Amino acid sequence: MTVLETRSQHGCFDGIQSYYQHSSETIGLPMRFSVYQPPQARSQRIPVLFFLAGLTCTEETFMIKAGAQRYAAEYGLMLVSMDTSPRQTGIAGETDDWDFGAGAGFYLDATEQPWSTYYRMESYITQELRQIIIDQFPADPNRIGIFGHSMGGHGALTLALRYPDLFRSVSAFAPICAPMQCPWGQKAFRHYLGEDQQNWRQHDATALIEDGRRIPDLLIDQGLDDQFLAQQLYPEALEKACREAEQKLTLRFHSGYDHSYYFISTFMSDHLKHHRDALL
Amino acid sequence: MTVLETRSQHGCFDGIQSYYQHSSETIGLPMRFSVYQPPQARSQRIPVLFFLAGLTCTEETFMIKAGAQRYAAEYGLMLVSMDTSPRQTGIAGETDDWDFGAGAGFYLDATEQPWSTYYRMESYITQELRQIIIDQFPADPNRIGIFGHSMGGHGALTLALRYPDLFRSVSAFAPICAPMQCPWGQKAFRHYLGEDQQNWRQHDATALIEDGRRIPDLLIDQGLDDQFLAQQLYPEALEKACREAEQKLTLRFHSGYDHSYYFISTFMSDHLKHHRDALL
Repeated sequence: MTVLETRSQHGCFDGIQSYYQHSSETIGLPMRFSVYQPPQARSQRIPVLFFLAGLTCTEETFMIKAGAQRYAAEYGLMLVSMDTSPRQTGIAGETDDWDFGAGAGFYLDATEQPWSTYYRMESYITQELRQIIIDQFPADPNRIGIFGHSMGGHGALTLALRYPDLFRSVSAFAPICAPMQCPWGQKAFRHYLGEDQQNWRQHDATALIEDGRRIPDLLIDQGLDDQFLAQQLYPEALEKACREAEQKLTLRFHSGYDHSYYFISTFMSDHLKHHRDALL
Repeated sequence: MTVLETRSQHGCFDGIQSYYQHSSETIGLPMRFSVYQPPQARSQRIPVLFFLAGLTCTEETFMIKAGAQRYAAEYGLMLVSMDTSPRQTGIAGETDDWDFGAGAGFYLDATEQPWSTYYRMESYITQELRQIIIDQFPADPNRIGIFGHSMGGHGALTLALRYPDLFRSVSAFAPICAPMQCPWGQKAFRHYLGEDQQNWRQHDATALIEDGRRIPDLLIDQGLDDQFLAQQLYPEALEKACREAEQKLTLRFHSGYDHSYYFISTFMSDHLKHHRDALL
């Protein structure tokens, strides 16, 4: 069984907030993740929610800023988050850009060198980390949901679409809905996946739905003052694909809210209720 | 009227989270503070809660980590926090120690050179910042409370004790209860206030109560896994002084909780209710 190094542990809403590091077989380097165990975890196997964070974030960001533990403690949900990429791979230029490389793994397995050796976040989350959570925490493997923010919203949507047997509920805050159409996604996909756009479609939520994939009822919240909305996020493209495919989608736009965790924290209770209703 | 530079603004729980900078007359340098205005602020003057943060923190820490906006929006309380010291004064050694100098103003007016020129956090908060909040925000000047964490808990207690006309409610998370008795306090007081311990008593919550000062009903939460409890915080000293002085104190110890914002966030709703009950 994977040996976990506990980096820190904190009491939080009658549960435990923990940070771990381990040697990842999938990535080939140390990886870090965080777990919030609500009080219900002391006595039973409980549902789990994976949260995938956005560009530049780490395994800490969600746990510090989102204010989710309060609701997780109320609803009996375990929360899991993880770093947003491998770190210190030694690949030249890895830390040159804030929107590509370190902190920007885009939750896929790169197929192109030099990235393909280490940048394997999709396999890391869906196989290795998922198995660690099932083996070493009181998690119910049949009740796992996934959600995320921005790049992590893209990750939640695409992993839910690609692994419908693994994730029973899904939602997102301000996700990159159509990465093939936006600068962030095009830059990442070109480097990680190469030039063939047919491969890109496997990692684009809008394209996956156009191509016939389906997920459980989807909840998305989007701020209208989001500085990245017009250029990077394309919720309208996803909405159109869902409508044409009869994929159920609740897409809510909120005036006065931006791309920050102040926005995320505001609507966190709705998202945790959404997952609770699907998982409990 | 003081000109405020708005550094950022974010929608949050149907209210507004804002960060400001201004040229401080009291400090003689730019100072930063943060305000959360709940939705009730759109239509009326509302009560205000000042939060004083701990060592190494800034005006952002509480607003990012404490999860207080949710309750402030529910109860109709404005939240105000501020940086924990002047910055970039040019004083030699100012940033050498994490527990003294920059990030460690201890919420008093230094009397000793070189600190006395700039380190005037007590006057800054009780006069200049308080006036800014009253003049430029929909604040009710007769309903202002104060709370804080660690060094900021010390600040909340001592400012409430020294200015009973300004603060109508007070509480603290893991405060430094008797700074004259602990290494953090002794180091700060020696440098800021000089060697005469009679002057120190004016800035030590336990001594102020011993010397006859009183405050409204006081709520303190303290984690029993707090790594600073034994050496730095001395809640028992404060409890003894309160008991002997018949100062009303609710002091709660919590097993499994440490000194972090995971602890603070867990008991935030109780503190905001405590202030709401006193201020509404």
